[in-house]
Amino acid sequence: MEDCDFKVNIAVVGMGLIGGSYAMALRVLNPKSIIGIDKDKKALDNALHRGIIDRGYESGGRFLKEVDLAIIALYPRDTVEFVKNNLSNFKMEVLITDTSSVKKDVVNNINAFLPDGMEFVSGHPMTGRECRGIEFASADIFTKANYIITPSSKNTSRGLKVIDTMARKMGCSNVTYVSPEEHDDAIAFTSQLPHVVAVSLMNSHEEGFIDHMALFTGGSFRDATRVAQINSGLWSQLFIMNSNKLVDEIERFQRSIDRLKTAIIYRDMKSIDHIFQNAIRRRKALVKR
Amino acid sequence: MEDCDFKVNIAVVGMGLIGGSYAMALRVLNPKSIIGIDKDKKALDNALHRGIIDRGYESGGRFLKEVDLAIIALYPRDTVEFVKNNLSNFKMEVLITDTSSVKKDVVNNINAFLPDGMEFVSGHPMTGRECRGIEFASADIFTKANYIITPSSKNTSRGLKVIDTMARKMGCSNVTYVSPEEHDDAIAFTSQLPHVVAVSLMNSHEEGFIDHMALFTGGSFRDATRVAQINSGLWSQLFIMNSNKLVDEIERFQRSIDRLKTAIIYRDMKSIDHIFQNAIRRRKALVKR
Repeated sequence: MEDCDFKVNIAVVGMGLIGGSYAMALRVLNPKSIIGIDKDKKALDNALHRGIIDRGYESGGRFLKEVDLAIIALYPRDTVEFVKNNLSNFKMEVLITDTSSVKKDVVNNINAFLPDGMEFVSGHPMTGRECRGIEFASADIFTKANYIITPSSKNTSRGLKVIDTMARKMGCSNVTYVSPEEHDDAIAFTSQLPHVVAVSLMNSHEEGFIDHMALFTGGSFRDATRVAQINSGLWSQLFIMNSNKLVDEIERFQRSIDRLKTAIIYRDMKSIDHIFQNAIRRRKALVKR
Repeated sequence: MEDCDFKVNIAVVGMGLIGGSYAMALRVLNPKSIIGIDKDKKALDNALHRGIIDRGYESGGRFLKEVDLAIIALYPRDTVEFVKNNLSNFKMEVLITDTSSVKKDVVNNINAFLPDGMEFVSGHPMTGRECRGIEFASADIFTKANYIITPSSKNTSRGLKVIDTMARKMGCSNVTYVSPEEHDDAIAFTSQLPHVVAVSLMNSHEEGFIDHMALFTGGSFRDATRVAQINSGLWSQLFIMNSNKLVDEIERFQRSIDRLKTAIIYRDMKSIDHIFQNAIRRRKALVKR
């Protein structure tokens, strides 16, 4: 494919919430065709029926030879497996990207077996929903989202530019470049920790207690626990693949909550106010960006 | 005032976000007049200018003699002080309610000095915003909100019915009756703990780190930290007034997060999945209600 000319054949592997949303958002790039791949025939039928994809396949195969740009929207381990199993099916000039929210393992694994000529540019759209499946897919999920690209030494400026342009054309407002290690450090805090917190809030009490609490909840509890409706298969993989960093972040958070707890126990208004003022200032700065 | 006849004179004390929103929502009850009280003249002027109130006063006074229903939307300690300082100003048949999100202290304190004849029905609208001030007030904040009434032995069925009807007419979808103690137990978990979590997430890292993280944030972090832009004066008072219960809840949450952390450290996929499934089921049940 030419530089940022998207009049090409695109394959989206994984017709879930993210893959389906990519296929929908990629239409604005006016590609020659969008092929969908998913082992779940129902998801393919849904995508075909709604015109999200032009053709559907239940697994990889020789048809991948015509694909110029492949977007792998699978769990991290399945992403590595799909590329590995289809090396002989891809054309030599293919550009492959992914949507994994852990990077070090995925980039290192794929680069270890990817032949010269084929290029893998790893990307992470910082978006999603608390629901699963193509029926919840929407091109809107990319609007104003952050998009992270984690270049490796094997990447070309052309390859990076294509994925950068794709992300922006899909509606993302910030495209950031960091190493896979920096990415995994950052998202342990900004994405994995909030999921740990949401799940732990829901599990804080004995079974049945939450039902009794429903009439006492306001926006703060609902917002803090929104992502507790977690995709278990995906997130257990993500947590394990980034476990050292995540445990560091959990422990840092535990120390932070301990400081506030101590101030409350000692009814130390000055410390509580100091802690609040820090949080207010930081939160304001975060939202402004 | 007659049973649930709102063609009366209403006073709203405190023209902040909550008081202003009450005054706006109370218009649908078609009262004779709405008086606003706030020591901040700017807030009063804003409320008068926008027609939210009919008259404004910077403090209590003899004019309260004509008031049938008084809604005190101040911090808990100021709520108690206002009632105490204006006992001789209120008419004997006045019905007083409040909006405090801690109840035991407020109810016990006010009942200790309130003369027979005057009635105090304590209420808590489970709503709010992360912004302060009457400029953010809106009648909408009550729409489908939970409303809690904490009756005391001094309450009459008529007094309870008036506040219940008021809450429903303002748009609240659930009105729940619990004792002040039960209320404070519940909101330590459903409201105070999410605020502790949001603040502690924002303060987890060293100064400046969050700025660097802005490009890596998605919805999960933004939602979990929304209420970190906390009203420091109010929330430090709320935390201290309910500190025993809140510390219990923080420690229960710390044990919950420890269980997930341990499972991650041991890469114990079975336990992680079990923890996730519990959270998913509980969150689904919560949202359905």
